[in-house]
Amino acid sequence: MSKKIEVGKKILSANEEYAQQNSKFLTENKKLCLNMISSPGSGKTSILTRTITELKGRIAMGVIEGDICTELDAQRIRETNAPAIQIETQGSCHLSASQITGALDKLPINDLDLIFIENVGNLVCPTAFELGENAKIVVLSVPEGDDKPAKYPGIFAKSKAMLINKIDLLTMVDFDIDKVVAQAKKLNPGIEIFQVSAKTGQGFQHWSNWLIESVKALQLQ
Amino acid sequence: MSKKIEVGKKILSANEEYAQQNSKFLTENKKLCLNMISSPGSGKTSILTRTITELKGRIAMGVIEGDICTELDAQRIRETNAPAIQIETQGSCHLSASQITGALDKLPINDLDLIFIENVGNLVCPTAFELGENAKIVVLSVPEGDDKPAKYPGIFAKSKAMLINKIDLLTMVDFDIDKVVAQAKKLNPGIEIFQVSAKTGQGFQHWSNWLIESVKALQLQ
Repeated sequence: MSKKIEVGKKILSANEEYAQQNSKFLTENKKLCLNMISSPGSGKTSILTRTITELKGRIAMGVIEGDICTELDAQRIRETNAPAIQIETQGSCHLSASQITGALDKLPINDLDLIFIENVGNLVCPTAFELGENAKIVVLSVPEGDDKPAKYPGIFAKSKAMLINKIDLLTMVDFDIDKVVAQAKKLNPGIEIFQVSAKTGQGFQHWSNWLIESVKALQLQ
Repeated sequence: MSKKIEVGKKILSANEEYAQQNSKFLTENKKLCLNMISSPGSGKTSILTRTITELKGRIAMGVIEGDICTELDAQRIRETNAPAIQIETQGSCHLSASQITGALDKLPINDLDLIFIENVGNLVCPTAFELGENAKIVVLSVPEGDDKPAKYPGIFAKSKAMLINKIDLLTMVDFDIDKVVAQAKKLNPGIEIFQVSAKTGQGFQHWSNWLIESVKALQLQ
């Protein structure tokens, strides 16, 4: 049992070291980095492609894509002409900080204001692995149901912002937005909440303005 | 590095021992046990409550519920009058075989034909932990998108059956069923596929018949 704890500590601290290195690099270069976490299929890639397109000419974005396998998501990002680095985790359920170190090295960092990390679709494990990001963003889509902050509290407690995506489906499914907002605020009173549809574009102005303000605030530091 | 591998082996084999014990218990008692795995919010609990209700008087079912926290899902199952044991994993991303051993002990096993395990909502980690079940069942819901078997191949390759849930939303989202079926069959040519809506009941007859046949086949062994 003592062995297990000892090794666990070593693994965590190796990740932590890379996370600190990434954080230092991002701070020195004044780049905002957001780590997007959600269940599979909540619409992270669609949110990113619309965000990149809507903010073209105002914020230059790059994306680090994490998937168990395939380059599908990076291809979708590249169609917007934004640079995207795909990390295939080969079965691992989360991105680790050392993978981000490698990906940051491949991005044209001087040309970018904001780097999004799209983590592996998993509402649990990625929460525990710091990547050196400025903030975590959790995405919850309407068809997933309004009990998710209560059932998966970790990521809602740790995120700077929550996007409630697929609000175009609100009339089709049972989903009480007030309940979700109340659950999330109970776990995390300061969380910013955006109600959006990556499909129709609804709610994107509010989200885009928040990103612009966040990039400005960092660059003025 | 050698230490890490050694400890990993110990953990795996401890789980494997409990899994074998569960499997033996289930075989001796001629109980079918299905381990249901999906993303959060794909509708596992709704599928179970409808399945239990539609098969009342024909198959007696019990449910072992796995969640990070809350008793919400077990409460929903108990409303159908089926017995449900809730396991709160306290942050862990999957159920382990020893937890199932404990839960099987609490279920009124002699009164049951079929035990469903509803695993933690996670398309990755639960795939790697055998629980002693007869088969895994993967659920994919239409709003999650038609790229999921390609992006998360492990569970689709290992499952006896796939339920494509929320087909009442097919006209509302981009989802190519033929593509999903082809991807799943490529990974797993023998996989059974059921297209269902836990909301409307569409497709449940086919799924229910398959369960009845599976229980019968086991009891006749």
